[in-house]
Amino acid sequence: MISFESDYTEGAHEKILDALLRTNRESQPGYGSDSYSESAKEKIRRACGTPEAEIHFLVGGTQTNAVVIDTMLQPYEGVVAAKTGHISTHEAGAIEFTGHKVLELDGVHGKIVPERLNDFLEAFHQDGNREHMVYPGMVYISHPTEYGTLYSLEELKQLSDICHSYNIPLYLDGARLGYGLMSSETDVALQDVASCCDVFYIGGTKVGALCGEAVVFPGGNGPMHFMTMVKQHGALLAKGRLTGVQFDTLFTDDLYFKISRHAIEMAGLLKEVLQKAGCRFFMDSPTNQQFIILEDEELERLSKEVRFSFWEKYDDKHTVVRLATSWATKEEDIYRLSELLSDNREK
Amino acid sequence: MISFESDYTEGAHEKILDALLRTNRESQPGYGSDSYSESAKEKIRRACGTPEAEIHFLVGGTQTNAVVIDTMLQPYEGVVAAKTGHISTHEAGAIEFTGHKVLELDGVHGKIVPERLNDFLEAFHQDGNREHMVYPGMVYISHPTEYGTLYSLEELKQLSDICHSYNIPLYLDGARLGYGLMSSETDVALQDVASCCDVFYIGGTKVGALCGEAVVFPGGNGPMHFMTMVKQHGALLAKGRLTGVQFDTLFTDDLYFKISRHAIEMAGLLKEVLQKAGCRFFMDSPTNQQFIILEDEELERLSKEVRFSFWEKYDDKHTVVRLATSWATKEEDIYRLSELLSDNREK
Amino acid sequence: MISFESDYTEGAHEKILDALLRTNRESQPGYGSDSYSESAKEKIRRACGTPEAEIHFLVGGTQTNAVVIDTMLQPYEGVVAAKTGHISTHEAGAIEFTGHKVLELDGVHGKIVPERLNDFLEAFHQDGNREHMVYPGMVYISHPTEYGTLYSLEELKQLSDICHSYNIPLYLDGARLGYGLMSSETDVALQDVASCCDVFYIGGTKVGALCGEAVVFPGGNGPMHFMTMVKQHGALLAKGRLTGVQFDTLFTDDLYFKISRHAIEMAGLLKEVLQKAGCRFFMDSPTNQQFIILEDEELERLSKEVRFSFWEKYDDKHTVVRLATSWATKEEDIYRLSELLSDNREK
Amino acid sequence: MISFESDYTEGAHEKILDALLRTNRESQPGYGSDSYSESAKEKIRRACGTPEAEIHFLVGGTQTNAVVIDTMLQPYEGVVAAKTGHISTHEAGAIEFTGHKVLELDGVHGKIVPERLNDFLEAFHQDGNREHMVYPGMVYISHPTEYGTLYSLEELKQLSDICHSYNIPLYLDGARLGYGLMSSETDVALQDVASCCDVFYIGGTKVGALCGEAVVFPGGNGPMHFMTMVKQHGALLAKGRLTGVQFDTLFTDDLYFKISRHAIEMAGLLKEVLQKAGCRFFMDSPTNQQFIILEDEELERLSKEVRFSFWEKYDDKHTVVRLATSWATKEEDIYRLSELLSDNREK
Repeated sequence: MISFESDYTEGAHEKILDALLRTNRESQPGYGSDSYSESAKEKIRRACGTPEAEIHFLVGGTQTNAVVIDTMLQPYEGVVAAKTGHISTHEAGAIEFTGHKVLELDGVHGKIVPERLNDFLEAFHQDGNREHMVYPGMVYISHPTEYGTLYSLEELKQLSDICHSYNIPLYLDGARLGYGLMSSETDVALQDVASCCDVFYIGGTKVGALCGEAVVFPGGNGPMHFMTMVKQHGALLAKGRLTGVQFDTLFTDDLYFKISRHAIEMAGLLKEVLQKAGCRFFMDSPTNQQFIILEDEELERLSKEVRFSFWEKYDDKHTVVRLATSWATKEEDIYRLSELLSDNREK
Repeated sequence: MISFESDYTEGAHEKILDALLRTNRESQPGYGSDSYSESAKEKIRRACGTPEAEIHFLVGGTQTNAVVIDTMLQPYEGVVAAKTGHISTHEAGAIEFTGHKVLELDGVHGKIVPERLNDFLEAFHQDGNREHMVYPGMVYISHPTEYGTLYSLEELKQLSDICHSYNIPLYLDGARLGYGLMSSETDVALQDVASCCDVFYIGGTKVGALCGEAVVFPGGNGPMHFMTMVKQHGALLAKGRLTGVQFDTLFTDDLYFKISRHAIEMAGLLKEVLQKAGCRFFMDSPTNQQFIILEDEELERLSKEVRFSFWEKYDDKHTVVRLATSWATKEEDIYRLSELLSDNREK
Repeated sequence: MISFESDYTEGAHEKILDALLRTNRESQPGYGSDSYSESAKEKIRRACGTPEAEIHFLVGGTQTNAVVIDTMLQPYEGVVAAKTGHISTHEAGAIEFTGHKVLELDGVHGKIVPERLNDFLEAFHQDGNREHMVYPGMVYISHPTEYGTLYSLEELKQLSDICHSYNIPLYLDGARLGYGLMSSETDVALQDVASCCDVFYIGGTKVGALCGEAVVFPGGNGPMHFMTMVKQHGALLAKGRLTGVQFDTLFTDDLYFKISRHAIEMAGLLKEVLQKAGCRFFMDSPTNQQFIILEDEELERLSKEVRFSFWEKYDDKHTVVRLATSWATKEEDIYRLSELLSDNREK
Repeated sequence: MISFESDYTEGAHEKILDALLRTNRESQPGYGSDSYSESAKEKIRRACGTPEAEIHFLVGGTQTNAVVIDTMLQPYEGVVAAKTGHISTHEAGAIEFTGHKVLELDGVHGKIVPERLNDFLEAFHQDGNREHMVYPGMVYISHPTEYGTLYSLEELKQLSDICHSYNIPLYLDGARLGYGLMSSETDVALQDVASCCDVFYIGGTKVGALCGEAVVFPGGNGPMHFMTMVKQHGALLAKGRLTGVQFDTLFTDDLYFKISRHAIEMAGLLKEVLQKAGCRFFMDSPTNQQFIILEDEELERLSKEVRFSFWEKYDDKHTVVRLATSWATKEEDIYRLSELLSDNREK
């Protein structure tokens, strides 16, 4: 059985496990005040080009979205997101659980279109009934999106300008940020993210860590008493060293970028193999997630030897599935898939 | 100045004020255990044809929606509503404030289309990721809708059947229920509402009361400890007699229906007058709210002598406005409007 | 049957009903923007001696506490209250429902002791673990308290100074404020309340209105977008005139104070009658609530002709009950109670 | 520098790191459906003697308390806890954040006294105003408590009986459960915990894991859709293997119990050393946390070479500090402390 099910099916990059082992018996204070968290923050500040950045480590993606959004919004505000955004669909209502509406915009291939965002905000502020409505208090984007697509630098800047003209923060969910930054089709670097966004997170769970996401407030603009609110959300790790050591390792010698590049190279190879096998692509994705349309019988046969994710029904006889590469993907597995696909076609 | 701004710009029907005056000095226990609340409940049970119904009086519409929805949903559930539904747009996020997502469906003229509801529920229950999603735990409709439109009895039954096949309650927001029931274009009676819905409310605020909405659980199926949760939501009136006396009056000698019919007759007259004046209708509404498209200059001129509600921009030069009649509308005001419209056109 | 059960068993003062009747057919805009609300606010500003005050009308006491406390606290903050405070015990957890802890202090006769408050705040700010704790973000007092007792002006000033030295607001729950201000044993006037507190409310429901509480931010210091948050809490009246007209009447010709004085005079008479009948007082109360200890058999006999409130078990054979007077109390009822008490004793 | 600051200052037991390393490159499905989580659950079921138990792994203690309590309570219910309980004081209001009140009881040495619990519940159910109050819907105890004390089996049974006579669950916070079970002064075994409690958790973070707590519903009585609610709370790990592998290791060959016993032995040695040095104990603790009263000057001198936790001020010149042993404590560090203490005394 080979697996392209997701980018979180393996453990952690070996260097991370080594570091956990090496530092294991040191006595370190809890709750994020350990020396590894400090060191990791310093390295991330440098990588972002924002020496003033305030950085916090949380455990997982949904948790991070809920904590960041809830603590940055006023009670009367909601967060604008694409209808297909992770917070809109696949977080079990974690944002609403904290009392805030997700204001859903129709997007294109998972992305918010700057012009539509502007129209939405303009319409809101011209609406005579706006005092009876949820104020748009933040814009949420994911990069890469849930469909693997990427914003161009120009788009990011436009979104940033629109947000700032309405005086609301732009928040970027970077659960797979590494895979976005290392795409061969992007003009967006980590420093660009840091300069366009008011807050974002650098995903660890899907990019080589056991767990962990690094929240970055590039301007040092985190909410007051953030740690207390993190605890209130049940999101404060006693052994903060666990995320500290991991991010310290990821941001040493560019490990985060190197392993992300590997996933992108594997995705390139995967794409080739899929194309060669005549697969129909559901959409074009420049990152580590690839979406293809399979005939249902073919899907069933393949499922016996390959794991991938069900995405959505395409029509009565076809299904969209997702294949993901990651820092851990082995070239040999892609070649094996290639064989299976040709066997499959022959049948 | 004449006003068609809304159906809550006047006080209360005189019979209600009389009743408040007449019963004023009686000593009555608080929190809804007064004899008038009891009597009102009994009369409403009779009018609904549901002798087992459990009934509670709350103060206003948004409050009622928040209390009913929050207390009937499980924490992991959200409520399905039309995108234009009151809870989706104009309740300042009161539903999300209680921790629940409003799952928005595209509607038609403010109504949920049964087939689309069915597709939505079916897709949810077939989705392999549904454990990471908000469960649809209730369906919310308004009748009349926010656009004054009405469900047919056939549609209500379909919605009811769909809900019950998925084992979730159907909830009807009847803020303007009287105006819906007395429309000349409806085949839905109060008893039909009671037999199709698992919970609904009979609006008082917009139909002749100073305040108050009557929540009806036709099958006696209210949540346990409902009163405690009403208090927890800050929605429990100390002097429950205030809503008790009002609903007791509204449901004596069919007052609720008679004053609703008056509004509908006035809406008929208003429609005629608007048509005669050559006004363009934004949509056809069979109830007390009428929507027309005015040229912006005309709108400005008229605004000096008539109050109505801004609805939305139609295009660069036109605006949709709403004119509402109510139990309190005077025939003479409609004739005055007729004059103003012809004056206006002549200019 | 005569009733001393509570101060909300009758309707409203007749002048209020008159005013509702007189203004009934005027067309007035909704949501608190009617002219009566404006006029009432102006009169309250004058009575408080705070021309800059921001004032809002809400419907009931628990609602008001929840809205004020939730909108003024930061998410990481809780509200300090006496263990016997209304928000601590008898609001069904409405404060916690909004996400905030009630930090309970042992009080004396329902009051917070300034020195203990200071110790509590000092200890919190010296606690090395305070980042893992709920920040005290507001102090809540009731005046009169739930036991009918009153703060002296000196005590109010001390509490105010302590709060301000810790930079947190002092909030006074004035559900029965009129009865406190008109007590013969107080040196606290309405202007003192306004100058010592950062926010307070003037209770209507228990002092002659059908419903309604006036929230006063003496320094014009209400939270931004307060109206939107009121709506979010389900607390916004469509017909704001209902509370507007009532408070406009209560603050015309000192009606609020005059009817409160009546209740206090009746309480004085009641106290005399109870003393003469040899009743044992549970505690000394200078306002409209009187607490006596009845032998259980006596209680049972009296209950057949008098309504009062169970307060708590005193011991195996005795019970504490509360008798309340109000704006509506009739002298003859007190004389009737006197007769019943002497009959009772003779048996 | 030697450290007795807490039981979470080191990483993880080496066997856990070995297991993470050994299983690292296996492809495992996410969200707790990996084979290690399954295996760990089976081992825990066996250790508890409850083959039907439902088990879930969460990340940290406050998170676990919030998720368990919120998902098991009805909205109108609160949780009863000792005033000194972790949820009452040191979780930043995480329980109230989910909308529930913590009903605080005065305890003795951190423990709830069964008789007082019974009185509290009885009084609540006899209170005529209980519909306006928060219903006690669960009892929370910690074992060991925040003061290191333990319930006897007899006490546990009494608490269990009281809860069940009122039909509410008993919940045991076992953040340090291992240290309680291995105390030489306890008659409570893991099976007893499982038979007395309706839900409890076995703490990993403080007993040898990097992170992780195992929630046990001994009767298979977990709430429906628990996983969705865990996600809603932001508490669902993508790589569930992280907690799965750790608990699988801890419950292989009694590792959990063996490392807990080590901590208890070290605590015994520590106690001896402290007694020999003439230290005054704040209270007697039979587990891994020891509380002593230090003169402030002595405290300052010691602090230069030993880390411990500030607990509370004892009086003007003395402070209570806590010293904790753990699975990771080294005998040599205790001897070093012994030397420091005698040096200290000589000065």
